[in-house]
Amino acid sequence: MIPRYSRAEMTKIWEPENRFRIWFEIEAHACDALAEIGVIPKDSARIIWEKGDIPYTPARSARIDEIEAETKHDVIAFLTELAEHIGPESRFVHQGMTSSDVLDTCLNVQLTQAADILLADLDRVLNALEKRAFELKDVVCMGRSHGIHAEPVTMGLKFATFHAEFQRNRRRLKSAREDIATCAISGAVGTFANIDPRVEEHVAAKLGLKPEPVSTQVIPRDRHAQFFATLGVIASSVEHLAIEIRHLQRTEVREAEEYFSPGQKGSSAMPHKRNPVLTENLTGLARIVRGMVIPAMENVALWHERDISHSSVERMIGPDATVTLDFALNRLAGVVEKLVVYPEAVAKNLNQLGGLVFSQRVLLALTQAGMSREDSYKAVQRNAMKVWLESANFLDLLKADSEVAAKIPAKTLEELFDLRYHTKHVDTIFKRVFGRA
Amino acid sequence: MIPRYSRAEMTKIWEPENRFRIWFEIEAHACDALAEIGVIPKDSARIIWEKGDIPYTPARSARIDEIEAETKHDVIAFLTELAEHIGPESRFVHQGMTSSDVLDTCLNVQLTQAADILLADLDRVLNALEKRAFELKDVVCMGRSHGIHAEPVTMGLKFATFHAEFQRNRRRLKSAREDIATCAISGAVGTFANIDPRVEEHVAAKLGLKPEPVSTQVIPRDRHAQFFATLGVIASSVEHLAIEIRHLQRTEVREAEEYFSPGQKGSSAMPHKRNPVLTENLTGLARIVRGMVIPAMENVALWHERDISHSSVERMIGPDATVTLDFALNRLAGVVEKLVVYPEAVAKNLNQLGGLVFSQRVLLALTQAGMSREDSYKAVQRNAMKVWLESANFLDLLKADSEVAAKIPAKTLEELFDLRYHTKHVDTIFKRVFGRA
Amino acid sequence: MIPRYSRAEMTKIWEPENRFRIWFEIEAHACDALAEIGVIPKDSARIIWEKGDIPYTPARSARIDEIEAETKHDVIAFLTELAEHIGPESRFVHQGMTSSDVLDTCLNVQLTQAADILLADLDRVLNALEKRAFELKDVVCMGRSHGIHAEPVTMGLKFATFHAEFQRNRRRLKSAREDIATCAISGAVGTFANIDPRVEEHVAAKLGLKPEPVSTQVIPRDRHAQFFATLGVIASSVEHLAIEIRHLQRTEVREAEEYFSPGQKGSSAMPHKRNPVLTENLTGLARIVRGMVIPAMENVALWHERDISHSSVERMIGPDATVTLDFALNRLAGVVEKLVVYPEAVAKNLNQLGGLVFSQRVLLALTQAGMSREDSYKAVQRNAMKVWLESANFLDLLKADSEVAAKIPAKTLEELFDLRYHTKHVDTIFKRVFGRA
Amino acid sequence: MIPRYSRAEMTKIWEPENRFRIWFEIEAHACDALAEIGVIPKDSARIIWEKGDIPYTPARSARIDEIEAETKHDVIAFLTELAEHIGPESRFVHQGMTSSDVLDTCLNVQLTQAADILLADLDRVLNALEKRAFELKDVVCMGRSHGIHAEPVTMGLKFATFHAEFQRNRRRLKSAREDIATCAISGAVGTFANIDPRVEEHVAAKLGLKPEPVSTQVIPRDRHAQFFATLGVIASSVEHLAIEIRHLQRTEVREAEEYFSPGQKGSSAMPHKRNPVLTENLTGLARIVRGMVIPAMENVALWHERDISHSSVERMIGPDATVTLDFALNRLAGVVEKLVVYPEAVAKNLNQLGGLVFSQRVLLALTQAGMSREDSYKAVQRNAMKVWLESANFLDLLKADSEVAAKIPAKTLEELFDLRYHTKHVDTIFKRVFGRA
Repeated sequence: MIPRYSRAEMTKIWEPENRFRIWFEIEAHACDALAEIGVIPKDSARIIWEKGDIPYTPARSARIDEIEAETKHDVIAFLTELAEHIGPESRFVHQGMTSSDVLDTCLNVQLTQAADILLADLDRVLNALEKRAFELKDVVCMGRSHGIHAEPVTMGLKFATFHAEFQRNRRRLKSAREDIATCAISGAVGTFANIDPRVEEHVAAKLGLKPEPVSTQVIPRDRHAQFFATLGVIASSVEHLAIEIRHLQRTEVREAEEYFSPGQKGSSAMPHKRNPVLTENLTGLARIVRGMVIPAMENVALWHERDISHSSVERMIGPDATVTLDFALNRLAGVVEKLVVYPEAVAKNLNQLGGLVFSQRVLLALTQAGMSREDSYKAVQRNAMKVWLESANFLDLLKADSEVAAKIPAKTLEELFDLRYHTKHVDTIFKRVFGRA
Repeated sequence: MIPRYSRAEMTKIWEPENRFRIWFEIEAHACDALAEIGVIPKDSARIIWEKGDIPYTPARSARIDEIEAETKHDVIAFLTELAEHIGPESRFVHQGMTSSDVLDTCLNVQLTQAADILLADLDRVLNALEKRAFELKDVVCMGRSHGIHAEPVTMGLKFATFHAEFQRNRRRLKSAREDIATCAISGAVGTFANIDPRVEEHVAAKLGLKPEPVSTQVIPRDRHAQFFATLGVIASSVEHLAIEIRHLQRTEVREAEEYFSPGQKGSSAMPHKRNPVLTENLTGLARIVRGMVIPAMENVALWHERDISHSSVERMIGPDATVTLDFALNRLAGVVEKLVVYPEAVAKNLNQLGGLVFSQRVLLALTQAGMSREDSYKAVQRNAMKVWLESANFLDLLKADSEVAAKIPAKTLEELFDLRYHTKHVDTIFKRVFGRA
Repeated sequence: MIPRYSRAEMTKIWEPENRFRIWFEIEAHACDALAEIGVIPKDSARIIWEKGDIPYTPARSARIDEIEAETKHDVIAFLTELAEHIGPESRFVHQGMTSSDVLDTCLNVQLTQAADILLADLDRVLNALEKRAFELKDVVCMGRSHGIHAEPVTMGLKFATFHAEFQRNRRRLKSAREDIATCAISGAVGTFANIDPRVEEHVAAKLGLKPEPVSTQVIPRDRHAQFFATLGVIASSVEHLAIEIRHLQRTEVREAEEYFSPGQKGSSAMPHKRNPVLTENLTGLARIVRGMVIPAMENVALWHERDISHSSVERMIGPDATVTLDFALNRLAGVVEKLVVYPEAVAKNLNQLGGLVFSQRVLLALTQAGMSREDSYKAVQRNAMKVWLESANFLDLLKADSEVAAKIPAKTLEELFDLRYHTKHVDTIFKRVFGRA
Repeated sequence: MIPRYSRAEMTKIWEPENRFRIWFEIEAHACDALAEIGVIPKDSARIIWEKGDIPYTPARSARIDEIEAETKHDVIAFLTELAEHIGPESRFVHQGMTSSDVLDTCLNVQLTQAADILLADLDRVLNALEKRAFELKDVVCMGRSHGIHAEPVTMGLKFATFHAEFQRNRRRLKSAREDIATCAISGAVGTFANIDPRVEEHVAAKLGLKPEPVSTQVIPRDRHAQFFATLGVIASSVEHLAIEIRHLQRTEVREAEEYFSPGQKGSSAMPHKRNPVLTENLTGLARIVRGMVIPAMENVALWHERDISHSSVERMIGPDATVTLDFALNRLAGVVEKLVVYPEAVAKNLNQLGGLVFSQRVLLALTQAGMSREDSYKAVQRNAMKVWLESANFLDLLKADSEVAAKIPAKTLEELFDLRYHTKHVDTIFKRVFGRA
């Protein structure tokens, strides 16, 4: 997480002030429940809110840090500072709880906050993809497998494909959000020995979480592993779309281009350059987010009822993965929204192979005319290879091929070379993806 | 995937004969649909089933390999061999389809088959965990955080915790199974130019899959990334439980032990050894499965409408990840089922720290008796540190501490040292995890 | 490791018969040393060689497996089978040693054998790259940054670049080979309590290894982590070159092409296709090898004097990483050796941007003629952007630009548009890389 | 990289001011060389140093950021700001160079600076390990394989083992440092078209680097991949030692303990806790550093002569990996230096298994007394298993075993139970590791 690749909305989640605020809410809600079941005085709970419900400022954070420098324990430092505001009633705060109750529940609140932003990001990406998909639905372009011209598709189909992929990612993220939206207030080693389970239920409800069915002082880390793994999958989809755009922008293809603002410089040495730097950047950011998946999985196997090895990992990947992915999704949405498409280049590339893209249709026509599949394949390939090697026109070659001509008259052959043949089901696909066409 | 860590049921899925069988079914079902919509003769579809529906044997696989050696194309080799059995009607097979239609749909069938076995494996693990959890529900044992004695839990709670974790894994795997249970029969670059979408719908229904909303010659690989990532999470949970058992078996703890069969040798040099080799093995297998997550994610960003870089990865991790995880889950279930628990050792360890584990309860009692949290903490820690350093008895020290004694009478202090205090909510937790206690 | 991506020479290293042979040599050499220092009778050592030095066959391997099924211990099974051949003297075999002495030393022998093959593979790649580099040294082609035309380079330079990269990889692999070329015969927990250090020295010398300075029953796994990490770096270079070729082959570029054999089929559906399937395959294989780096690193932190979690990992990644990389390097060498280069396409692409590639030279000329760098940049960019947008001729535009014309006369401008300007240091670079030009 | 896990010395390397300073030096040294070979006026080069050699301050960094916000190009922003100080001579700065010349050479300077700190860190770790190794050389303790008591070692041997491991890491890091200590000043696409190779040689010499033999606008990223992979291996060794200490500190073992300062709090809830939080933290930090290895490897395959996908990755992992590892190594050194060892606990654990640890020696004595290895193993194991199950005394059982007694008289048996037998080669090992004993 570096400022260059960060958006304020997401970084705020990871600032100390947000963390301390969540800690306070956990403690104060817990006090309410403790008061309700008669463990602490109701007045004390009220006073804790009254005196404690004040904003966390950098100054307060600094004070907490100062205390932690001595105690070497962050939650105790937090409680000590809080006591300075609350006074004697502070002795009822954190009653029966253990640090992990606060830390783990807080982390899950932060991750759900982050997930909500990421879901909104995905919506922005989805909206951009949908808009471009419909706008470009009928712009026929070359489809490529292995980087080699294959058969025609449309530019809109490309965007529809990514829309479907990001829809899946949205679904996965929602599911991953559920996975980490739990609350544990179960005390040391998770037995509720010193805290009634009703406290957990109350705090969970207040924070929009579900009680963790069984916690062992910590909320189990398979939840977080699944969460970060899901971010890794989404990052891989970001890379997928970024690489598509990088390919489309390369000089020899140049069917599309990232928006290049006036005043922008492509290269310090070569003033003529217009580089797909945003999507290249996204490719790198995807690697970063993916690199956090394995550490998150290595965090699962904590020792016995807990160890704290996960903590340093999460202090880094918690912010890093969410902030970086948030930035990446927004950058991606911007790229899609403003992507410049060059229809002339699209058309030019489409015709580059002199009709070779119709080879399958000719193959099928030959088999339907009674030629064996093997013979049909050989006949078509024989002529196709000449196009590659001699830049000949495919249709002319086929007409001149006696074996082919014996099966398909020239007129029929000509009719096979028709782009509309390839786009006739675009609406079907759009309906599947968007529910409309 | 090596025989040592494989079970036949899972390896069979990845044998050529199963693959070719699935390919045949895809092609033959497609022919039915093509016949139904009038593209090929109904009689031809019938004959294709009649003549083609014969078992794939190693001999047939060898024949296909032979053809592939020449054509360098596996699906064409398959079709050529099939034609040797079907005769002239074979020209209707694969009509309008592309290799990826067959390969990708087949891979997804294999992955759903594998997922079904893994789900059954998880059920075996869950059953074993549930059985042991109830059996050991009330065996009080030491709970440990940071490897240090904390407060009592029960052995049954440990198993309940893992049960909840594996329940989550089961849910995740079901969801991952849905993610890869799709079928694509959309032809080159996925436009349905040469094949009617109804064919895809028919084949999907017959194979228990859903049609892929939009495929670009390939089924999008974010689906597979999510699938393998989920296997990585499950593997991490395997490691989690394995490490718990390794800890419990270490000589100084020895609360539990992997079953050690008569005739088994622990060490070639040291005849006295009884080593937790199965769970150590599981720790390693988890690393292996996890190592396949990133390659699967790197597969997502295929170029344009497809490239084939994913193929070599999947030829290895498809079998390797599923076979290894299947083996690991079964080994794990066996370890849990037969784990030997030593209640005497459990009890001995529980008492090792001379009552220190009640430190929190004393802390709470002091605060409730009116001492500030800070002072209470200091009082308890002061006496606790003496126990660590001088192996003194904690209760005796507390009684002798004038500040403590001033707040809590000796009798009350003694009553605080009660294990039942820590187990009173075990039933609550069991009900949350198992729905019963 | 699957047959499809394996070469026999490398797979042989990992067959049981090679492993057992190495085990025998370790044991027999150890007996020689034990006899030499008087621990066992010299005659016994002689007899062990005489009766034991017989080939390991699949039949013997099967017998060993059979014994292991009972003892659940592979080295004991091996020793038991060996005793069936050697008779009573077998009681002197393995004296004072522990299984790990045999297993770990053997693994390192296998890894050095594998490293030797990989070094030879790298030599084949290097030779191919050098040959093509010199052959294509002067074929001027477009250099591209960000996929965008930048300035001219030569095809030979591309190969020289990869040659330098693979030279580095060769050096790294040699260094990694040294890292794992050690021998440990130090007995249980590595104290030499039951075996004299001179035995280790003797066996090490015989097997071409160095004695491990200190082993703790196992040879420390940081050595193996470094080894597999190095394979991961080499795999990444394979991917690097593979992706370069995939780019050069894409239809719109098509400056080079993998050799396409007669009879080969590019696509079952589209007979016209010629796909870079080998380099796509290499891209995937690189992911696989890279996926083994983290598991190898996770193996380092074994518990205390050893645990066996590394073993299952190494049983898989030992063969998988070396066999896959060996296959990949050979495939890569073949691709480079036979790569078809199309000079006409190279030339055509070079001219595609109407002279824009000379923009930097014009920029420099303007600054040298006294214009500020900022103004020069603006002047050049202003004209360059017109070329992008209007496909105009860059030189013509510059001549017509009054500000530019005021600084550089038309004649001089024309002279700046000279490819030789860009290739004048090719020989310098070749001398640096190859020691000759 | 977060403040909590950072040391100022290392973070300074990654601050903008250090980066800009290095950029300036590269540019200014290049000007010297350009002046020397007559491309620019000698006076200009002198003035560039005179006016430009002023400290980079946060204020200057802010000004550069401001310019970058408009130009969207960091090097151009830097040059523009520099021009504000240098005046008209600034037009000679960056002549013939491309941004990557500056950026990549700078990154390598930063990485060598970081490597130098890390080498010093390793020295601190090595010193601590050596000191403790000698101090504890003769403290006999239990050696454990699989977490199970095996045979005696000494505490000093443990530290010697890690010393050898960190010696190897030091060697690897030196080698990795060499790998990234290169300088590229080769201009756009690396052809030296606009810049004489002598400039590169001059700048390299001034900065303590070697000229990159062939660069393609960028310094090839296999160098960086190897560098970060090496950091990953070192991090794994950190984890290795951390886990050893965590095991030694667990309550049931407690042979050693991290230093616990007065005023420190182990747990907010349980005042009695003394947790190995530093080594747990190190375990997590190791995961983080390791997570950056694969992204660095994915950076290798840049497109054609360069793309910029590596940049975002390196902006994050450059600082993160070096800062985190630097912090971890220093924390580790501190833990080792201050580690509290408890000799009584060491001795107690050593005797825990009632002499079982001598089982191998008895086994060998039996074989030397003429019993077959198989029978000896069974005799020893038979008695050993009784010790496990009935907590009997191993020596007594052996004496009472008629088969054993028939081979070894009671007196001789007693003599076998001697710890010095296990430590007789400690000096040999120390000499191998430290060159002295």
